Amino acid sequence: MQVVDRIALLRKELDAARAAGRVVGLVPTMGYLHEGRASLVRRAAAECKVVAVTVFVNPLQFGAGEDLEGYPRDLERDTALAAGAGAGIVFTPPVEEMYPEPVATAVHVAGVSEGMEGDSRPSHFDGVATVVAKLFAIAGPCRAYFGEKDFQQLVVVRRMARDLSFPVEVIGCATVREPDGLALSSRNVYLGPDERRAAAVLHRALVRGAALVEGGERGRDTVLRRIVATIAGEPLAELDYAEVVAADDLRPVDPLRGDVRLLVAARIGKARLIDNVGVSC
Amino acid sequence: MQVVDRIALLRKELDAARAAGRVVGLVPTMGYLHEGRASLVRRAAAECKVVAVTVFVNPLQFGAGEDLEGYPRDLERDTALAAGAGAGIVFTPPVEEMYPEPVATAVHVAGVSEGMEGDSRPSHFDGVATVVAKLFAIAGPCRAYFGEKDFQQLVVVRRMARDLSFPVEVIGCATVREPDGLALSSRNVYLGPDERRAAAVLHRALVRGAALVEGGERGRDTVLRRIVATIAGEPLAELDYAEVVAADDLRPVDPLRGDVRLLVAARIGKARLIDNVGVSC
Repeated sequence: MQVVDRIALLRKELDAARAAGRVVGLVPTMGYLHEGRASLVRRAAAECKVVAVTVFVNPLQFGAGEDLEGYPRDLERDTALAAGAGAGIVFTPPVEEMYPEPVATAVHVAGVSEGMEGDSRPSHFDGVATVVAKLFAIAGPCRAYFGEKDFQQLVVVRRMARDLSFPVEVIGCATVREPDGLALSSRNVYLGPDERRAAAVLHRALVRGAALVEGGERGRDTVLRRIVATIAGEPLAELDYAEVVAADDLRPVDPLRGDVRLLVAARIGKARLIDNVGVSC
Repeated sequence: MQVVDRIALLRKELDAARAAGRVVGLVPTMGYLHEGRASLVRRAAAECKVVAVTVFVNPLQFGAGEDLEGYPRDLERDTALAAGAGAGIVFTPPVEEMYPEPVATAVHVAGVSEGMEGDSRPSHFDGVATVVAKLFAIAGPCRAYFGEKDFQQLVVVRRMARDLSFPVEVIGCATVREPDGLALSSRNVYLGPDERRAAAVLHRALVRGAALVEGGERGRDTVLRRIVATIAGEPLAELDYAEVVAADDLRPVDPLRGDVRLLVAARIGKARLIDNVGVSC
């Protein structure tokens, strides 16, 4: 496996792969890979001949007061994990390589970047859309893998790629979960034992909401109430938001129809956790 | 020469050209080609094996009250002119091909898009940066040719391409002028005979300002005053703005040093004309 820290070299490698007829897979990450992110790499490796994992803690997507400096980094472990999952290239550009001068250009995706995480973290999705546009421009034609865990991010990236006609197929990958349903997240380490047990309530609430829909319920408020009530039944959890929206544009849909996404965010102790599930009707 | 109106087909043609080792040239235009724009195509044809001219009247860069519907179109003439200048492909996508759904994504270039034309036409450069990013994403690795006549646009596009790491070399081409110095522009047809004679004052003012700098003057205000006074000496001309800025970031520079750009905009009769020249010191 190759570790590359220059834009020009990554581009050269991926151009050469395509010229040899190989499909390129791209897995953009901020590093600190866990089993959830490794599953993206494995999926990419199963579907693409050459897989590049990018490891870049993107300053643009951290707001004022968010802990950019403290974001966990472990490049050696990430490289080993990526290699084990089938990556051929790990792209680890220093900040000066990605942003040699203050970035004047911002990519903004209206609509889908608003509400939910967009409300909690203003300008976060501009930072995401901008760095992903840059990574797509660097990588060239490819399949790019993103986790459904960050569902709003996936929708923002997909919309950006479509609007700007990047030759990139954006692929959402199912969330990897613990046996009790808790979505894998680097934030789970902040949970004490009781909090860890309590955290399963997010997925439980979503599954109950989805079960209502599968059982024929089409009222958005009824489904929302079930989710909210389930979270409220767990004293250690403090709900941030619950949403029931159309999966493609994240707009509230009532009565429910088509591909619907149920999303929650909640604080448990020091950790702010998010999760979502999909249901069709 | 090939006329292509589908994104996928243009991409396929340009990918095939690159796979055959040919350098691709791109000349983005809104059509209604004149000799100035034809000179971009000739330059591209001299430097690239395959030249694609895009003809697309981009709704995103027209503000409220600007005449999108009335923008002049003559595709047959454009196609003939592009072919005569050496284009191999003319890309003429309908609006539904470029924007099949309302565009949620906007590319904004801070700093260089502010002031001058950015003040007169709010959101204009967002529309330009967005459509050019999309054209770059469609075209892939290439050399892209823009006229220096729209100098601020050139700087905005160059900065966008650099910030987002598009594999595109943005090339500015010298302004083509009438014998009396008037820059070629589709707006020159709005000028009556007296106005046409008066319009030469823009270039004359810029040349006088540049001559001061070449003669050793380093005071920004002195150069500005010379430009403003020259325009004021022409009763038919009404100055909109005059600027003396650094050529790379369009910031006022005082005392003058490095690559400096002198820019003016003025109304003459119904026409609003812009022009600029460069000088180094």
